[in-house]
Amino acid sequence: MLLPEAFPGIILASRSPRRRTLFSETGFDVSICDLDADESFPAHLKDAEVAEYLAWKKAHSFHGDYSGRVLVCADTIVVHEHKVLNKPVDETEAFSMLSRLSGSEHRVFTGVCMKYGERERVFHEVTEVHFRSMSEQEIRFYISNFKPFDKAGSYGIQDWLGYTCVTRVNGCFYNVMGFPMSRFYRELKEFLSDAQ
Amino acid sequence: MLLPEAFPGIILASRSPRRRTLFSETGFDVSICDLDADESFPAHLKDAEVAEYLAWKKAHSFHGDYSGRVLVCADTIVVHEHKVLNKPVDETEAFSMLSRLSGSEHRVFTGVCMKYGERERVFHEVTEVHFRSMSEQEIRFYISNFKPFDKAGSYGIQDWLGYTCVTRVNGCFYNVMGFPMSRFYRELKEFLSDAQ
Repeated sequence: MLLPEAFPGIILASRSPRRRTLFSETGFDVSICDLDADESFPAHLKDAEVAEYLAWKKAHSFHGDYSGRVLVCADTIVVHEHKVLNKPVDETEAFSMLSRLSGSEHRVFTGVCMKYGERERVFHEVTEVHFRSMSEQEIRFYISNFKPFDKAGSYGIQDWLGYTCVTRVNGCFYNVMGFPMSRFYRELKEFLSDAQ
Repeated sequence: MLLPEAFPGIILASRSPRRRTLFSETGFDVSICDLDADESFPAHLKDAEVAEYLAWKKAHSFHGDYSGRVLVCADTIVVHEHKVLNKPVDETEAFSMLSRLSGSEHRVFTGVCMKYGERERVFHEVTEVHFRSMSEQEIRFYISNFKPFDKAGSYGIQDWLGYTCVTRVNGCFYNVMGFPMSRFYRELKEFLSDAQ
């Protein structure tokens, strides 16, 4: 698929299948590569700072060649009452995270870092997500059938839990899926026109 | 895929491919059939009343057998500054609708009517959607590549325009795709427990 405007090719360094799908479906000329990143961060950072820092750190740990193309890295975190929820290590942690999110609202931050030649830009987007109260049976059903161990906060908004338990989103939906595409599209245009 | 609770089978009478996908991915035991409905409505009805009326009218124009199952019909409308935007008849009308939605916010209403035996329930859900300003080039690109003629308001939130031009959603995202699944899930449980 084409785009209405000409963009340079993009290298998306991310293991997230949701991010990969969003980029290819939007129509970018995109190459995708894996990036193993250490997701630790300094304890004094808060919310948006954590997401931006991790995206920046991923971009700076990329050592491939991206000349003539835009390198894009991103990190998504879930924040509930000022606590950052990462990917759960096992069923027990997933159960504990989802019990915490049940019947309340949380915020999802995605930090994005793009690099083009010597220049770079970092930004983030935040979205509020409201969950209805979930029963223990529903949470256990979800974990055993969907195994959300690669997802921050232990859920995917584009699967069963998102369909049946998310009552409201306030902000960019695709940010919750893992990438704030409409914001990125605007930032990328500005970033490239600043470069000329 | 299963569900954590037992529900009777569902007959979804709708031509919308998005609705069909949402039902099957949520895990319902669902049979799908077409329904040709006249989408006219009395001029004195407003917003939510239009969506509920059309869903009710669809359910009452269904003449198949749904004994032992729940019949579900729905109608989605887009409302911009109190004007109801239906499906566009051609490119000119799609262009006019999208130009109208550009750089502003609108509301999406989905009315749902469910019938089980002699009983029925009607409800609606509303979601606010914000579009950034779109260029004429972007709108023409979208219409010629995505041909949004089967969509109320001339766009799909799950395709290129949704990815790149929707900056914010306030409410249920899946309502904008055509069906308020989390609300339906809750209403269905209540509806069936009332029946016992």
